[in-house]
Amino acid sequence: MELLEPLQKAIEEISKLPSIGKKTAQRLAIFILKSEPEQVENLLSALKDLKTKVKFCEVCFNLSVENKCTICRSQKRDITKICVVEEPSDIFALERTNEYNGLYHVLGGVLSPLSGRGAESLRIRELTERISMGDVKEIILAMNPTTEGEATILYLAKYLRSSNIKISRIARGLPVGGNIEFADQATIGRALLGRSELE
Amino acid sequence: MELLEPLQKAIEEISKLPSIGKKTAQRLAIFILKSEPEQVENLLSALKDLKTKVKFCEVCFNLSVENKCTICRSQKRDITKICVVEEPSDIFALERTNEYNGLYHVLGGVLSPLSGRGAESLRIRELTERISMGDVKEIILAMNPTTEGEATILYLAKYLRSSNIKISRIARGLPVGGNIEFADQATIGRALLGRSELE
Repeated sequence: MELLEPLQKAIEEISKLPSIGKKTAQRLAIFILKSEPEQVENLLSALKDLKTKVKFCEVCFNLSVENKCTICRSQKRDITKICVVEEPSDIFALERTNEYNGLYHVLGGVLSPLSGRGAESLRIRELTERISMGDVKEIILAMNPTTEGEATILYLAKYLRSSNIKISRIARGLPVGGNIEFADQATIGRALLGRSELE
Repeated sequence: MELLEPLQKAIEEISKLPSIGKKTAQRLAIFILKSEPEQVENLLSALKDLKTKVKFCEVCFNLSVENKCTICRSQKRDITKICVVEEPSDIFALERTNEYNGLYHVLGGVLSPLSGRGAESLRIRELTERISMGDVKEIILAMNPTTEGEATILYLAKYLRSSNIKISRIARGLPVGGNIEFADQATIGRALLGRSELE
């Protein structure tokens, strides 16, 4: 017995989503089949709106419904600082801390020679253009502490050094609430190297 | 910073799907945001077709694009046997074996007093109507070997006993390619009880 064509097609499309395998796609398709039409309509229109209404900020490439995002439009932000992140979702995480009042720049990924992502695939040119406007005094590199993230930080630090502005990176160390006993070697090592003097 | 409204709405709708939490929903929403418009269009139209084109067979409640499913319409099936399953996906699994040539009946779940699912929520009345047509000689109960599945088998066996037809259940035992050493106690016990004589 062949699967019904619309079901097969739906499973195929759903399984193109990240971290969704064939089995999960089948379960989701059957769930949608059994759902109330109104509920499915809500899901479809939400996805449609997501794709049509949300775009990328033309300055920092954060998500936005306007041409410029709320952070770039705000009068209250410190325009001398730009925090460089991999993805828009990192901005949410950083904003939640309430510790940063500068601007952002979304690179759109990290350098990854193995998967063929070189510097030209990241928004580095757009970043240097923003720096060349003259207001920026500090660039904070906030990549994920992964191998690719580290490589990207080293690359950017070298690339931007000539521009005569301060370049920093966010600290690596023990997570708050963490435990020295169970922390990995590399994290403890970084926490030691990054120690700060008490006054 | 608040999440953008269309993004928030999309995450909310996606996380209503089974086994999709808030974090996965966020990742999926961002993936959709970054996908090519054509790709998203394909997904949306596949989901729409799924919901509008696929219905349930009016006889056995299998999935179908017609009023009757391909199995119920087929001239080659043995109409004296009905295999009762929980969900349409079980039919796919049974059909793949090529060991069964009878008809099916989708109950639409199992008895589950804890989650408030009683006999009236299952398609038992529809099953007895099919039996009363007189062609059926055997009912094969193919519920999942879970507590609820077992309860449903016992209930149905008792409920249908009066109808004077053969009632059977599929065997429990060691899975093919399995290993006695690592099988659980209950499975080995069932395999022993269900042993068959060699000729």
